[in-house]
Amino acid sequence: MKRLAILGSTGSIGQSTLSIVEQFPDRYSVAALAAGRNLDEAFAQVRRWRPRIVSMATEELAGRLTSRLREAGVSGIEVVYGTEGTVACSTLPEADFVVSAIVGVAGLEATHAAILAGKPVGLANKECMVAAGEILTAAARERNVPILPIDSEHNAVHQCMRVGRHQEVKFIWLTASGGPFRDTPLEQFATITPEQALKHPTWVMGRRITVDSATMLNKGLEIIEACRLFDVPPSKVRVTVHPQSTVHSLVEYIDGSILAQISVTDMRLPILYALAYPERPESNLTFDLAALRHLDFEEPDFERFPCLRLAYEAAEKGGAHCIALNAADEVAVEAFLEHRIPFTGIPDTIEGVLASTPEAHPATIAEVLAVDRQARQLAGTFIA
Amino acid sequence: MKRLAILGSTGSIGQSTLSIVEQFPDRYSVAALAAGRNLDEAFAQVRRWRPRIVSMATEELAGRLTSRLREAGVSGIEVVYGTEGTVACSTLPEADFVVSAIVGVAGLEATHAAILAGKPVGLANKECMVAAGEILTAAARERNVPILPIDSEHNAVHQCMRVGRHQEVKFIWLTASGGPFRDTPLEQFATITPEQALKHPTWVMGRRITVDSATMLNKGLEIIEACRLFDVPPSKVRVTVHPQSTVHSLVEYIDGSILAQISVTDMRLPILYALAYPERPESNLTFDLAALRHLDFEEPDFERFPCLRLAYEAAEKGGAHCIALNAADEVAVEAFLEHRIPFTGIPDTIEGVLASTPEAHPATIAEVLAVDRQARQLAGTFIA
Repeated sequence: MKRLAILGSTGSIGQSTLSIVEQFPDRYSVAALAAGRNLDEAFAQVRRWRPRIVSMATEELAGRLTSRLREAGVSGIEVVYGTEGTVACSTLPEADFVVSAIVGVAGLEATHAAILAGKPVGLANKECMVAAGEILTAAARERNVPILPIDSEHNAVHQCMRVGRHQEVKFIWLTASGGPFRDTPLEQFATITPEQALKHPTWVMGRRITVDSATMLNKGLEIIEACRLFDVPPSKVRVTVHPQSTVHSLVEYIDGSILAQISVTDMRLPILYALAYPERPESNLTFDLAALRHLDFEEPDFERFPCLRLAYEAAEKGGAHCIALNAADEVAVEAFLEHRIPFTGIPDTIEGVLASTPEAHPATIAEVLAVDRQARQLAGTFIA
Repeated sequence: MKRLAILGSTGSIGQSTLSIVEQFPDRYSVAALAAGRNLDEAFAQVRRWRPRIVSMATEELAGRLTSRLREAGVSGIEVVYGTEGTVACSTLPEADFVVSAIVGVAGLEATHAAILAGKPVGLANKECMVAAGEILTAAARERNVPILPIDSEHNAVHQCMRVGRHQEVKFIWLTASGGPFRDTPLEQFATITPEQALKHPTWVMGRRITVDSATMLNKGLEIIEACRLFDVPPSKVRVTVHPQSTVHSLVEYIDGSILAQISVTDMRLPILYALAYPERPESNLTFDLAALRHLDFEEPDFERFPCLRLAYEAAEKGGAHCIALNAADEVAVEAFLEHRIPFTGIPDTIEGVLASTPEAHPATIAEVLAVDRQARQLAGTFIA
């Protein structure tokens, strides 16, 4: 029985994780929930799963949750809040496995604390690896703690990496859907609206990640994530545009063999893989190979998607540049969604911020967060 | 340094194996060559590779090779012949690895002897596994001897099987090119000529295997081979028609993940994999993933290709039925190539022979060969 601490339990990955727990009651139980701001959902989850501890975003929300639990006759559950609360969840002694699924750098400290506490981590939070990958992977190596990727691409890579040794990997090929503007003429990019950018052809996702998918900055973050998770230089990570999103990624070996992972596009699959690794429980997430007809692959267009180039540049420099790439993009996407900058303003903002970011390699989470704040300020200034 | 015994050295797999040895002189050397009937090629190979021992098909050929070697001033090489000679090669004490690439059941005794002698085997000979898989795999298990498949499909499966545990495999999916008659109307099958059948869309191969590919009996033999090599029931082996022959096979796991292996269609790749396993040396057999455009997959048509059904039936019964399937097919293909029976006569012959074959599980190679002879006689009678 693995007892889980789920950071970001009310989000999409958190809910999918709980549906896996529901499906495999003999394998998994819930020890801690870091729930954030959604009080109703947090209340429902606590009532259903009875964790030892639950964390809310603020003291006020924690107070309201405590009252509701008391009214409902639910007792014996510790309610905490804020970053300290999330860390209390991720380091809970009786938790065996931490699912890190808080969006953005907010989950960073708790994820780091979990690794320092020697807990295996299922990582759904891309920004953690991009902003603090050097710190997190160093800590994980030192304590021999596995970090299992919970996103379709890196999870696929993790699987394909098992068919050879690390030094035998020639390229990691991340597949990309290519987003909605794969075939849009370049001259129309400046006039792309938020409404157009929010339509993703394959996955239903949050607003920022959907726009990131349209600019392919999302794939850029994944390039950096792959470098950190799998300890390879950016030159070994390539992108192939695969509109069907059926092949989730590939690994090419030096002898000429390429391994690919195929499955349904359902996040429960990488979650289950991470939770159960190295086992594979039987699931109903069946891909109908007999129904597989065509798979297409294309080279990505670096002119159309300058964010890809910017990500490679940041990946090469590492440290502060990766933090700045992520922070600047988040600010720029928000500005784009609020019609303050055009679609092409997103890469322009990132490029501007990166140009003003000195090379540095933060050694602590506090330093990472400081660089993150600076980059956000820089991006704000650049946009204004 | 691995010292190889190559059974079938003058054939296509044998020659490809030697080209690998040529490319990796620090990894591999040649200890024994079983060369068969091609005297010129055998002479050239012995002169180039200087094995400890070489075997020819007959005493007469062995005598002629001895003379030619003497004339050329090549000394210190033992020349042997026949089945005993092949066995002497496959059990040579200083050989570390045996490549079993003699076509047909001729390589059976030597392959069995190699396993009994505790030597790892790279198996390119499909008929060995089909006719005597139960005996060979039992011997290999008992002595903990690895059998590494040297054919693109099973080699791909071997790779994909590394990403999970045996009991977690749901299906092995063998890819099939579908042969030249994939889209031929069913009513034209009776009038297919040998010339038409000998044109294979993707691979250049021997005559029997090309016809077997056209009837899909080849894939049928591979189904049986997969059952034996990977210790799974026939119900776990499926076929998908993939005309590009780029994905060499796939393994579907119970959690929903499917792993696929992709590479150039070059036999040197599975040979290198088998020789080097579990390492992967760097090779120039590069697949250009960027050039990958489309992959197609279709369900096989069991009405058009009755040999597939016959193979599944034989696989279920095992033992004598698998031997008979292979033997009857070899006789029938020969008759077809000599215009004695129509294309549709091949499955008819096999079906007739299988119907007259009693269920049995030969426990020795001698018994296997006896069943093989009986089936050939039966097939001859059926055709006449």
